[in-house]
Amino acid sequence: MEDFARKACQNIEALRKKRPLIHHITNMVVMNTTANATLAIGASPVMAHSPNEVEEMVSFAGALVLNIGTLTRELVQSMIIAGQRANKLSIPVILDPVGAGATSLRTAEALRILEKVKVEIIRGNAAEVLSLGGEKGAIKGVESFQEAVEAVEVATSLAAKLRITLAVTGREDFVTDGKRSVWVSNGHPLMKLVTGTGCIATTVVAAFTTVDPDPLSAAATALGYFGLAGEKGARKSGSPGSFQVALFDALYDLTKREVIAGIRIRAHR
Amino acid sequence: MEDFARKACQNIEALRKKRPLIHHITNMVVMNTTANATLAIGASPVMAHSPNEVEEMVSFAGALVLNIGTLTRELVQSMIIAGQRANKLSIPVILDPVGAGATSLRTAEALRILEKVKVEIIRGNAAEVLSLGGEKGAIKGVESFQEAVEAVEVATSLAAKLRITLAVTGREDFVTDGKRSVWVSNGHPLMKLVTGTGCIATTVVAAFTTVDPDPLSAAATALGYFGLAGEKGARKSGSPGSFQVALFDALYDLTKREVIAGIRIRAHR
Amino acid sequence: MEDFARKACQNIEALRKKRPLIHHITNMVVMNTTANATLAIGASPVMAHSPNEVEEMVSFAGALVLNIGTLTRELVQSMIIAGQRANKLSIPVILDPVGAGATSLRTAEALRILEKVKVEIIRGNAAEVLSLGGEKGAIKGVESFQEAVEAVEVATSLAAKLRITLAVTGREDFVTDGKRSVWVSNGHPLMKLVTGTGCIATTVVAAFTTVDPDPLSAAATALGYFGLAGEKGARKSGSPGSFQVALFDALYDLTKREVIAGIRIRAHR
Repeated sequence: MEDFARKACQNIEALRKKRPLIHHITNMVVMNTTANATLAIGASPVMAHSPNEVEEMVSFAGALVLNIGTLTRELVQSMIIAGQRANKLSIPVILDPVGAGATSLRTAEALRILEKVKVEIIRGNAAEVLSLGGEKGAIKGVESFQEAVEAVEVATSLAAKLRITLAVTGREDFVTDGKRSVWVSNGHPLMKLVTGTGCIATTVVAAFTTVDPDPLSAAATALGYFGLAGEKGARKSGSPGSFQVALFDALYDLTKREVIAGIRIRAHR
Repeated sequence: MEDFARKACQNIEALRKKRPLIHHITNMVVMNTTANATLAIGASPVMAHSPNEVEEMVSFAGALVLNIGTLTRELVQSMIIAGQRANKLSIPVILDPVGAGATSLRTAEALRILEKVKVEIIRGNAAEVLSLGGEKGAIKGVESFQEAVEAVEVATSLAAKLRITLAVTGREDFVTDGKRSVWVSNGHPLMKLVTGTGCIATTVVAAFTTVDPDPLSAAATALGYFGLAGEKGARKSGSPGSFQVALFDALYDLTKREVIAGIRIRAHR
Repeated sequence: MEDFARKACQNIEALRKKRPLIHHITNMVVMNTTANATLAIGASPVMAHSPNEVEEMVSFAGALVLNIGTLTRELVQSMIIAGQRANKLSIPVILDPVGAGATSLRTAEALRILEKVKVEIIRGNAAEVLSLGGEKGAIKGVESFQEAVEAVEVATSLAAKLRITLAVTGREDFVTDGKRSVWVSNGHPLMKLVTGTGCIATTVVAAFTTVDPDPLSAAATALGYFGLAGEKGARKSGSPGSFQVALFDALYDLTKREVIAGIRIRAHR
């Protein structure tokens, strides 16, 4: 599907020109890596979570990432304040429901955010997305034991119901807005051996929404680009320490030719 | 002592098959690196500290790590809640008393955890362990100025008194359950130049307890394995940035042959 | 200016002998990287922020870093407690006003710290420093859109007014104590692609103050040394993942000869 490959190139070029601010209210595990990923793809990160500044900070942002990976009730309160302000300013909000389904707090807080904030895209693994749809996902901690293919129906109906785009990642990624659905088959198994690759995917999706007005296309091309970076990294190293380094290099130095040749996005069915 | 080398191999193989969840309530400095270390050795990390979810999260875990490196009183409260739940479920609890002895808060909170929670293994440096035994350890910040050999008596009597296993790390590591004691002489000086190697040691110990029911053997083989990874990393690089990368690679790709040939564990005296 | 090159060598040698403790109350994004930077240059890091221990912890420190990158009001309270204790003990306090000017909370809290604590050196980018001087800096998140040359006047008069040393970093760094001013022209553009390089600069400056009683000389040689490490790292790699690794290697393994030959510090005008 050549269109998406071209679109991915356009998005990354536009991103590097625009250098948008991506405001993250995120977990403590990945703050450093997602900030570095933001820089590597050509955007500018800020991590700010005080309830006394998030409204002001988000007003300068191109997109807002809400990630509940090490949530507390207070932190979710900041997310809602920032999210509602983003909504007023038409700044896209991307939700990463890390561990939804693993504990009732995470499921409940993710749903509370969805109730209070108009989210544009949810990026999660299959079990997380299933749990948001009211099903019992197979999850241990933050790791899904299900693949995106098992979440196709729930994701599609949830997308339609919430008028939201769902990006379900795994061995293959499923992206749907309830009407249109695509599969992204980039990526490499080593990515599961680096903590926070799901969170980085969310960050890349958020960055792409600042230059691509179509959430489905933004999410799919972002996941394709990120997966391709993983594939390039895996050609440099087969062990997780040096693979992580190569992944960040690739996020920065993937060429247009590599993107055109490598992105694999196809329509569902 | 060939038995421990074989045991180390068995433990790492069993670990990679089982892929247990290691629940960390830990410090902000090492959340990312210990999560990556958990993945590299074949286990699955989760970092969760909200008092509203730790009881539920720990119930899925194979082991619980409590690390006071950037403690607050609230965080210790979550540790106690999670630890008591782990005790009820017979999930091993591993304590890393980072900086005990450096401030009275750290000593007092580590002792409070030990009073409220049945800990299976404490992994700390000599000064930290001495301070838990009521002695004044030579510590500056989180760095010990004493070696394990200076903590042998205190560690042994503390282990016997608390019915706990103590893993005292340093140039050589001393592991004792009060009756049996061993020395582990793997490792490399460069490991002291990477922040959080003590915390990573604790994580590896926690992971090994999920497959080895004998805490002494679990701790000793874990420290041997981790030290060996440091030695392999140090053969790749003599500077701390690239050494850290090589250390994480080695945690993942040490071969059975390397483990059998390299682990150095001997009985005390 | 050969004097500064020699001074840089003396400082780094003295630092490695003394191995001072650098107490950080800092942001969650860079805790790990600044701890590793502290180790790489030969000092010892501790990150501690509980209001119940910061007074005690700072009393062992050679310098105190206050960094507001992910501030909350509670965290700033700990900074003030620690800073006032450091003042009583004549331990230098280094302030990094991350994002001052970006939100009113950050500007206000940075000014509140300056009011309550005698700070020896402020290390910030041009927009942050301008905002502390009451001007409107061009900042988006934590990224300045102005260069140090645009902050020369404000920095000089602020330094004189507060009797403080200001280290304004950017493509070139401007360091002034209000009377004497110098330019440091080491560094490499890739440093902007690694999150926290500003924060690392602050850490290196803090470490140098423990061995150099002249804040201007300490700050200038620290920035020169750090910039030189960036240049050496950039000769190894042109992409941000492997560049970051090479930067940390260089912080540790820059030779005396490389420092003498490479440091570029000159008087202002």
